Amino acid sequence: MTTQEKVMTTKGVAKRLSKLFKDNKWSEAQDELFCKDAVSIEPAHAAGAGMGSVKGLDQIKKKGEQFNKSVEAIHGGYSSEPVVAGNHIAIAMGIDATYKGKGRQKMDEIIVYEVKDGKIVKEQFFF
Amino acid sequence: MTTQEKVMTTKGVAKRLSKLFKDNKWSEAQDELFCKDAVSIEPAHAAGAGMGSVKGLDQIKKKGEQFNKSVEAIHGGYSSEPVVAGNHIAIAMGIDATYKGKGRQKMDEIIVYEVKDGKIVKEQFFF
Repeated sequence: MTTQEKVMTTKGVAKRLSKLFKDNKWSEAQDELFCKDAVSIEPAHAAGAGMGSVKGLDQIKKKGEQFNKSVEAIHGGYSSEPVVAGNHIAIAMGIDATYKGKGRQKMDEIIVYEVKDGKIVKEQFFF
Repeated sequence: MTTQEKVMTTKGVAKRLSKLFKDNKWSEAQDELFCKDAVSIEPAHAAGAGMGSVKGLDQIKKKGEQFNKSVEAIHGGYSSEPVVAGNHIAIAMGIDATYKGKGRQKMDEIIVYEVKDGKIVKEQFFF
């Protein structure tokens, strides 16, 4: 990191995000690409399951840890190539996992990211 | 239309939507693929420009007509291949147009569609 550091374009963020997702480096993607004040928006129907919308990277990471703790085994998953328009990115993603006390579930979602000054300021989930 | 009509899958809707968009058949896409109670969600910053969120296909089509009336000339545009996950579709899209009294503007956006029973029940714009 230098004072000469260039701000990443949205396409650059999309490319890096996609690479980290394909390597299953979810937490690293948050550390590297998210703004510390980023917000995470879940669909209304998900709020009841303890996975509601949160504000701040620390809360987003906490939500990730909670999710990881709920997982017994991951059987498969994928993430699509990103689609980019202006300062937004969309990625499709799926996970096939067994959750503690809940059994095996497949889940597919679209995530939209908003980028500002080279950092992700918002993620919104659709499933 | 027969009582034997099959409900389109989300992938089927995405394929057809993409085809109609590439042919610039926006209004036809709404008539063919949207549920009559569909909702259209605009970003908060767009509401002031008279392009707010609306409910119902008739209101969505009215918004489209208002947009068409505001356009003086279209210079170019594109729509991406759709990304599909579960019952959601994301498409990136751009338009380069001159608007009456406002000059030429390029605009890029992501649109997320929610599909239920083979019809689009929600569109949400990100720009």
